[in-house]
Amino acid sequence: MTFEQLRYDVDDGVATITLHRPERLNAFTPVMAAELGRAAAAADADEAVRVVVVTGAGRAFCAGADLAAGPGGLGDRSRGAAPDGGEPGRGSIDGVPRDWGGIASLPFAALRKPVVAAVNGPAVGIGATMLLPMDVRIAAESARFGFVFARRGITPEAASSWFLPRVVGISQAVEWVATGRVFDAAEALRGRLVSRVVPDAELLPAAHALAREIADNTSGVAVAAARQLLWSMLGAASPWDAHRAESRALAELTAGPDVEEGVAAFLAKRPPEFRAPLGEGAVAGVPRWPLPPDDVTP
Amino acid sequence: MTFEQLRYDVDDGVATITLHRPERLNAFTPVMAAELGRAAAAADADEAVRVVVVTGAGRAFCAGADLAAGPGGLGDRSRGAAPDGGEPGRGSIDGVPRDWGGIASLPFAALRKPVVAAVNGPAVGIGATMLLPMDVRIAAESARFGFVFARRGITPEAASSWFLPRVVGISQAVEWVATGRVFDAAEALRGRLVSRVVPDAELLPAAHALAREIADNTSGVAVAAARQLLWSMLGAASPWDAHRAESRALAELTAGPDVEEGVAAFLAKRPPEFRAPLGEGAVAGVPRWPLPPDDVTP
Amino acid sequence: MTFEQLRYDVDDGVATITLHRPERLNAFTPVMAAELGRAAAAADADEAVRVVVVTGAGRAFCAGADLAAGPGGLGDRSRGAAPDGGEPGRGSIDGVPRDWGGIASLPFAALRKPVVAAVNGPAVGIGATMLLPMDVRIAAESARFGFVFARRGITPEAASSWFLPRVVGISQAVEWVATGRVFDAAEALRGRLVSRVVPDAELLPAAHALAREIADNTSGVAVAAARQLLWSMLGAASPWDAHRAESRALAELTAGPDVEEGVAAFLAKRPPEFRAPLGEGAVAGVPRWPLPPDDVTP
Repeated sequence: MTFEQLRYDVDDGVATITLHRPERLNAFTPVMAAELGRAAAAADADEAVRVVVVTGAGRAFCAGADLAAGPGGLGDRSRGAAPDGGEPGRGSIDGVPRDWGGIASLPFAALRKPVVAAVNGPAVGIGATMLLPMDVRIAAESARFGFVFARRGITPEAASSWFLPRVVGISQAVEWVATGRVFDAAEALRGRLVSRVVPDAELLPAAHALAREIADNTSGVAVAAARQLLWSMLGAASPWDAHRAESRALAELTAGPDVEEGVAAFLAKRPPEFRAPLGEGAVAGVPRWPLPPDDVTP
Repeated sequence: MTFEQLRYDVDDGVATITLHRPERLNAFTPVMAAELGRAAAAADADEAVRVVVVTGAGRAFCAGADLAAGPGGLGDRSRGAAPDGGEPGRGSIDGVPRDWGGIASLPFAALRKPVVAAVNGPAVGIGATMLLPMDVRIAAESARFGFVFARRGITPEAASSWFLPRVVGISQAVEWVATGRVFDAAEALRGRLVSRVVPDAELLPAAHALAREIADNTSGVAVAAARQLLWSMLGAASPWDAHRAESRALAELTAGPDVEEGVAAFLAKRPPEFRAPLGEGAVAGVPRWPLPPDDVTP
Repeated sequence: MTFEQLRYDVDDGVATITLHRPERLNAFTPVMAAELGRAAAAADADEAVRVVVVTGAGRAFCAGADLAAGPGGLGDRSRGAAPDGGEPGRGSIDGVPRDWGGIASLPFAALRKPVVAAVNGPAVGIGATMLLPMDVRIAAESARFGFVFARRGITPEAASSWFLPRVVGISQAVEWVATGRVFDAAEALRGRLVSRVVPDAELLPAAHALAREIADNTSGVAVAAARQLLWSMLGAASPWDAHRAESRALAELTAGPDVEEGVAAFLAKRPPEFRAPLGEGAVAGVPRWPLPPDDVTP
């Protein structure tokens, strides 16, 4: 699998996806959107991958949409003429061209494996909104964030109007979006956009340590089911929906091999060696989340 | 437009609504409820208004429902006999008289423009719940808050059972409501009811500085669409709902004038001069939020 | 009413439920699950109970599912063979056996009275998830928490996939669940799983002081309606749903005796003496929450 604007590496259970246009501060293009979707799908399908880390090459995470084509850049992005040429797999929803931001971000929502973002520098516009379906965000001290859309005359995208209020709360979400302000890592931490701020040199080690904590100790099938349960239940009206899904999931998982290994390892005080494959399907009672509606054309 | 129990001023893009019964600590009446609804609608319709600031005259923000009519005051409020006489536009929902608190608060939810509350003193009962659909709350050091309803024998109102858990989290919401405790600005900050606490003399300057940050830098049409997207998506089950709405909004906005100005100003490193009118309608894909159900009679 | 694995005491309006298998660190069994459900129902029905406190006997809150039956313990729990024998009232949902965790936790969600958890030591697995539908969690300094399910090869249960993201936010929820990490009270406080950490000796006094603050100052009917409104509105799409329910609740409550007493006591600056019975039904407009779906068999 090759990418033009990303690097994709798998090492000991952890896939690292690196936005890779350092000469352009990793500015976002339709090519990058499509490649992010492909990389997320690859990590989802690869049994050797337990956790995904996303970061940027060079001194930025992602400086936003590439405006190199001039003042029309943002409009072109939405209308489909890619500044860098090429527009693979845009498709439509509800009869209009799909937002490129959502094409990049929704595959990370659909990933069955945990995603840790390591924000190594400016994350602005789509560079900020693509972070939201990732589970944990760790910021370097030099990170900057900005939901700058209203300063460019557009709304937030990448499905961020669903994600942002759930991640940081509705009041903080409206303040950041309505001002379009660029803010530093300390403000991101106070506002709960990131869970931690670390010195720049410690960013990737911190992200990989968290990935290791997951990969070394937990069952991949159990984590996949849990990640989808937690996110999907944000849209459920009643805790009985969770009781139903969890009862079905437990009935399936306790008939599988990982429970026996998990309990045996715990009682023997040794590390577990889980082996149940994730496969392509879903754990019973935990449907794949979020499923695209019927009118999305690829 | 004249008001009996409010002041309404527009200055350089910012409308300031001031609860104005200082001799009664701005205690809430049916007249005030109706006037708050009218003031919010006026700010929504006026193209010269970009941001709304709400505060109180004198040493209180709002001391709660006016109980001057004696022990029956709260009951009278709900049953419709206004202590100050006059009961314009109460209407009914689900066959019962509408709660006056919701009549005051829901128009602020429906406002397409950001609302900054400057809490200058006690905000108790409806004085606390009316704050919740406002986007950002800044407190003076002398502010006090209390969801005191259960101490008076009634439930919270003003649609606060929907807003409060989303603003401060369900655990904090139940604790404040079940105790009915009156608490200070520091506890409000810890519990995320307010985003900031400032010395009393700096309260209005802080609220207006935030309003200016929005008004001077962003597109009014973009902010209106974004505010409604963020709030409405709190009720959506899937991020695909956001992707659909955002794709439609982007298709419309990128065909309008503000994108070109926003990108040109950014590239030229000059302040933008947005000019797209908000008008009466909605940005495509972003319906007016929240729409009243069919059985509300005015 | 007698319990084998709990203590249940009522004193001056406060019911205290104590997990009581101290020799096994209060490890969870099917018997305990059923008894927790019975105790919650008893507290709900008893007019003498205004608030419920839940804690553990000895040095643990609850060390998780009892694995004394060996590596099959967790599986047995899910498949229904109870380590301690006896399996009263398990029932099924969606055609599979109900998760014992949900059997224990959902009755606390359905309680019409506020619940304060006093976490006196390790709260791991079901010991952590059963806390989530309780309204306020106070931790002793020696408390430990762990959503360790993925380390045992299963998903979180007890309807926690619905509760946890609402209590601590989706990012923190996924981090704790995906790592299965055991963490201390300070991390629980930072992550907003608990509202306060107190020295061990002050834990029960702190929980009972909060219970007293509720019981001594508020109307039981009003608090019951408010608790159900706040939780149920987490599943509602629009604040108009709250306006509808609150308008109906206010119309009923303001016709009852507690409003008059509440306002009179406030004006006279004396403690209120509320007397409206809660009864079995619901306040108008505030249906019992959460109602089980039709296909749950007891």
